[in-house]
Parts: sequence; structure tokens; C-alpha cells
Amino acid sequence: MTTKIITLTTDFGLKDPYVAEMKAVILSICSDAVIVDISHEVEKFNIRMGAYVLASAATYFPRGTVHVAVIDPGVGTQRRSLLIQTKLGFFIGPDNGVLVLAAEKQGITRICEITNKKLRRPQVSNTFHGRDVFAPAAAHLAKGVPSAEAGPEISEVKKPKFAKVKRTKGALMGEVLHVDGFGNIITNISEERLANLQVKGSLNVAFPSGKATLKFGKTYAEAKPEEALALIGSHGYVEIAINQGNAAEIFKAKPRDTIRLSQAPANP
Amino acid sequence: MTTKIITLTTDFGLKDPYVAEMKAVILSICSDAVIVDISHEVEKFNIRMGAYVLASAATYFPRGTVHVAVIDPGVGTQRRSLLIQTKLGFFIGPDNGVLVLAAEKQGITRICEITNKKLRRPQVSNTFHGRDVFAPAAAHLAKGVPSAEAGPEISEVKKPKFAKVKRTKGALMGEVLHVDGFGNIITNISEERLANLQVKGSLNVAFPSGKATLKFGKTYAEAKPEEALALIGSHGYVEIAINQGNAAEIFKAKPRDTIRLSQAPANP
Amino acid sequence: MTTKIITLTTDFGLKDPYVAEMKAVILSICSDAVIVDISHEVEKFNIRMGAYVLASAATYFPRGTVHVAVIDPGVGTQRRSLLIQTKLGFFIGPDNGVLVLAAEKQGITRICEITNKKLRRPQVSNTFHGRDVFAPAAAHLAKGVPSAEAGPEISEVKKPKFAKVKRTKGALMGEVLHVDGFGNIITNISEERLANLQVKGSLNVAFPSGKATLKFGKTYAEAKPEEALALIGSHGYVEIAINQGNAAEIFKAKPRDTIRLSQAPANP
Repeated sequence: MTTKIITLTTDFGLKDPYVAEMKAVILSICSDAVIVDISHEVEKFNIRMGAYVLASAATYFPRGTVHVAVIDPGVGTQRRSLLIQTKLGFFIGPDNGVLVLAAEKQGITRICEITNKKLRRPQVSNTFHGRDVFAPAAAHLAKGVPSAEAGPEISEVKKPKFAKVKRTKGALMGEVLHVDGFGNIITNISEERLANLQVKGSLNVAFPSGKATLKFGKTYAEAKPEEALALIGSHGYVEIAINQGNAAEIFKAKPRDTIRLSQAPANP
Repeated sequence: MTTKIITLTTDFGLKDPYVAEMKAVILSICSDAVIVDISHEVEKFNIRMGAYVLASAATYFPRGTVHVAVIDPGVGTQRRSLLIQTKLGFFIGPDNGVLVLAAEKQGITRICEITNKKLRRPQVSNTFHGRDVFAPAAAHLAKGVPSAEAGPEISEVKKPKFAKVKRTKGALMGEVLHVDGFGNIITNISEERLANLQVKGSLNVAFPSGKATLKFGKTYAEAKPEEALALIGSHGYVEIAINQGNAAEIFKAKPRDTIRLSQAPANP
Repeated sequence: MTTKIITLTTDFGLKDPYVAEMKAVILSICSDAVIVDISHEVEKFNIRMGAYVLASAATYFPRGTVHVAVIDPGVGTQRRSLLIQTKLGFFIGPDNGVLVLAAEKQGITRICEITNKKLRRPQVSNTFHGRDVFAPAAAHLAKGVPSAEAGPEISEVKKPKFAKVKRTKGALMGEVLHVDGFGNIITNISEERLANLQVKGSLNVAFPSGKATLKFGKTYAEAKPEEALALIGSHGYVEIAINQGNAAEIFKAKPRDTIRLSQAPANP
């Protein structure tokens, strides 16, 4: 018997009954589902952050996992409900970009709009499709309903807003993807792209708030406590961190800020 | 085999080991229990909020679910430990009102005081009955111990403090039930009661802090971003919201505040 | 079939994808693992708090439980990865003291360094051993891999920093172990040690910030609302609390503060 994993990513927070209502609906339909919270602390209405968090975590789940993401400011409007099938699993949520980054990483094989009323709760509220549309669709899918029954195939979906990395002479321009709870500044510049710069032990980093020359290390504790450094984070992207400190506070960095990396002398 | 779902609603927060201790006790007794957190962020000692959150979520769980709620300022005193059986499930917690709203929605069939020492941990602390009394009782019940073994039937229990909706000429007086993490102001005025007002597109709303005429819509995004509106929320009650904003901050509304709804011209 | 429980204690918070990545890795290896969160709100880098929270909760889990703790400021450095086997279960995490308090309470039977690359993810990042080393080791162990395969036995490990209780004439000197979410001040002075003082209804308590004579009671509600008292908390240690209030704020107490308890007249 395969494990039926359903993940949840929302901006609901943990104070209110909303997350539990989704889980109750899932377990009412698919009693042996294993529900895993990815995050319910996505900033309210922040589709881009939801997309980042989902895409980061989804990679590590077993084949066949069903991922539900509900950052959904347009709930109850004409925005469509999506089921995206990939080579590794399924993504369910609103058509506002929150699913696409994660799904593209896995290779999209089919996108459909969820229109089949049998996959919904009998009464659908106008304000909580997480509970009334997305959770039941995920549970039916986990239980074995073929994805083709969800609704008609579609081709165009909304994309999340992420910048591309640009290369100029001796420098890379990217953006801040995410600031994590440690204050680590995670950029969209991958280890592969950074290879172009031929970094030798240190790196010039420019944020909108200013610039610095930082040690380029392997892990946080290579810097002294409270000292900043650059490194490759656990998802393979350049990260600016402070050993046992909060880099985002010190550098006043936030998601979407541009960041510029360039060569620096080996010994700063 | 039926799934043995046990839900937890507490004011313990997620920093401390307390919630995990309850789960450990449950799994020690009933190793195949499926434990679902409803909320552990109920405001400390706020029985009314606990009652609201539990009642909101419990509705969606499958038949046979055992709900444990521990907002328990009187732990270790003479206050009784309750097991309330309903047509759909079971509610376990202190006799202080936290269980009754949820249980009444399901139809109470039997209330007993939990006195059977076989359903407790061998040593019961004076300050943590969630772990030592309620969690083990829930686990034994989920495992198949008949509810009649918990203790003697009783008839009178403490009720939570909620106001009733009053109708006056052309107006409804109710109260704020809950302010959710989005800042949505959830009232105790149901869709059915609101029908009396014959609302035509807009609504006069009066809070202790002031009044406003609001659009009456179906979903948040019918208002412009940062614009307020009234709508029927996902539990069937009138809700005052701001599209992508925080209504409770703007209207300075909090639980227990009175709210008055009255007819307004169709085009405010 | 025994239940395969794996617990998680980290300082990751719940906003980011990190906890979910650990769970995904565990479920990829051991699909029927039951994962229980102890806490992800340990203060960042606070090994002592992690040790306290883990040790408090671990006691209540069934025999065979695998506990993973990741408060790990030295990730990616030479600090070792540990598997500590006890009479009741297993503890996995960095060699920085976070595991030892909990493991010693259960009786340590064997400590080894985790060196076997088959128990890791194929690619190990420098900054996230929770996901790449500790989670997979726990999952393999839960799945039945013998603990002896993890790596070579070792004898010396880092100890967490906790003070011992000292007894002077008519007084006990201890320290604050933890301040919980209610503001209760939990000390390291056990019920057994307190017996030496022959407390008769009240107790003199001295903190760095000042002193007070407090009622010694059995539970919070023996004090009036907002009134302070001392009692034996749910883990068997002296606790200073305020009924429905926050003792740590009033007494300006924090972990590691010294606390002195001495005899007081029966009626303060």
C-alpha cells in the first residue's frame, strides 16, 4: 500500500480553525491520508513567498505526493482552481502563480481546471476554497480518483513574479528570494551561476542599502559569531548570513531586493 | 478498521513541550491514533475563544472523532472533568464551558464526569490535566473503551458566555465572536437571521468605535484592495472584512464587542 | 507492528520550509513513520533550551521512539553527529549537548558517531544536517537498521550547561530552567530537594531582581487572579507562577537566573 501524502501550504496562521478544517475534510474523504504541513505562516496574500516555500519543500517529498497551496486573495472570483500534474506528483490550488514554480521544477505533464463538482464539498463557500474545493480534490486524488476526472485540460496559467539572474562583466545581478527565520538572505543566484565569477575566498555584495566585501565560506560557523559571510545555502543558492546573527536586519534586505555579486580579492 | 482521530485545542502555544507530552501519552495508549491539532494558539485562559475555535472546526471531522480541549485556568481545583457524547463524536475537557458550544452543535446525547482512575495516567499532577487526565481518556476512548466506563452521568454543566442576537425594527444586534488572523471580524449573526433585514447591496454597520455603510458582497475581492465590505463568511455568519487588509484594526473591533446591522440604501 | 515514532525538536520556526523538508526525507525512507513535533520554537541557537524542552517531553513517549533534535550552530564544522541509545529509545543530533539531558534521564546504553554514509542523503549540504544527516538516520533506524551500523562507539560527548542545586542552612540555591509561554518560572529544584526545607504553606523566594514571600500551593487557582504563588509543576520541579498572569514578567526572571528558596512563616 502506498502512503498517501498530502501537504498543505497556506497563509492562514495557526491560531484559527481554518487549517484543521482542511485536515478534517481530507480525513473525511481519505481516512488514511498522511497530512504534512509545509507552512501556514506564509505572509498573508504573499503569493511569491508561498511559491518559494512550496517549491523549496516539495522537492524532497516522495513520488505521488499531492501538494495543496492556498494563498488565495482572489477566492470566490473568476480565478480558476488548478490541478497541475508533474512527473513526480500533483499540485492543487488557485491559478495565481503559487503552484507553478514548484511544479515546473518537477516537470509539468498536464494542467487542468478543477470543475468536477463531485470532487468538491456539497456546499462551496465563497471565501474558503481551501476547505471546500482544494482539500477535497486532494483527498479524492490521494484516494485514487484519476486526475483526468478533475476537469478540462488548459494550457495557460498565471506565473509567479520572479526575476532572472543577469550576468554582466565580472558580476551577477539577482534578487532576494526569501528571508528565513534566522535572517539568512536567500538569493536566486545558483551555485552553477556563481561558478562564472570564479570566486576566490571572498565576494563583493551590493544590496539597495549598501555594499560589503564578505568571506565566501562553506558554513555559518566559518565566520566569527556576529560576522557576515556568503555561502551556498541548503537549496543550492547563494545566501548571505551572519553566524548566530540576523543578516537581513543588518543589511536591511527583504524579498525582491536586487543583489549584485562581483569578484573580490582573495583576502579582503 | 476505522480511523481513530483525536483533535487537540489548547492555549499552550507551540514553544513548550506541553502539546507533545499530550501526544506522547495518547500514542502510548493508542498507537494508531491520528492526532490533529485544531489550535494551540487560543489566547491564554480564553475559554470563549477556545469554544469558538473548537466549535468551528469540529463540524468538519468524521463521525467518531474524539475532541480534546484544554483551556483550563481551574486545573487541579474542584472543577470537574467532562466527557460529552454527541450524535457525531466525543468531547473531553474541563467543565468550564469550552466544550459545550461545539457539542451542542452536534446534539448532546450524554454527559458524564470522568472519574474512572483507569483512564488516567498513574500519577496525576495538579497543574496539567491535559496530559494526565484528558489525553489518556481520549486515547482509551479511541481505542474502544466504552464511554459509559468514564464515570457517572451528570446533567448540569457550565455554559460558555455568548450573547444572543436581538432583532429590533430594521436592525439586528449581535456581538463579535472572533477576530481571525486576517483581521476579519466574525459576528454571531447568521445568514438566516440576516435574511430578516432584506439587505440590498449594502449594510449599515455600527461598532462601539463608530459606524460605516459597507457594501454587502459575496467575497473579499469584490471590494477594492484596502476597501471594507460585509459578507457571509465560511461558517455562515456575517463577517466584516477588508480586501487584503485588516478590518479589526481599522474598526478597532474585538471579541464581545456589540455590533448592530441595519438596512442601507442599495447604492451607498 | 510497532508504531515508528520520530520526534522533532528544532529552532527552525514554522514559517520556513525546513521542518517540512525533514519530514519529507523521513517519509521518503520510512513511509509509515509517525512524526511528532516537540517544538520548533526553541530560541535560535539556544542549546540549553532545546535540551530542556526535549528532556521534558521525551519521558512521555513510548519505548522505541527516535528523537531528533537540531539546534545546531556548528553545522558543517568538525562537530560530530551523534546517535545516543538509551534504555527506552534513541536520540539523534549534533554533539553540542542538546541530546544529553534527555538521554541521561532514560539511561544511556551506547553512544556512537554517525559516520555511515548509507544513512545519509546522497548529497549532504554544509548548512542543513537536520535534513541531510539526522532525519535520514532517524528514518533508517525507525525502519529497522540496527543502531550499531551508524558508526563507531564513542565515550566523550559535550554536556549541556545546567547548574546543580546547592543546599545551605535553611535554604536551597538553584537556577531558572525555563520560562514557559504562560510566564511560569520553572526551576531546577525538585520536589524531593524541596522536602529538605520543610515548607509550611509559604516560601521565601529570591531572584536577582528582588525577593518575595509566596504562598506554597498545589495549583494555580489557589492564588487569587493576578496573585503569585509557588508550587510543584507538572514535571516535578518548583515553579513560580501567577494565577492567570505572567510571573516571569513580574519577577523579571529568565533562564539561568539564580533562585534562592528558604523557609517562611506558615502564614505570610
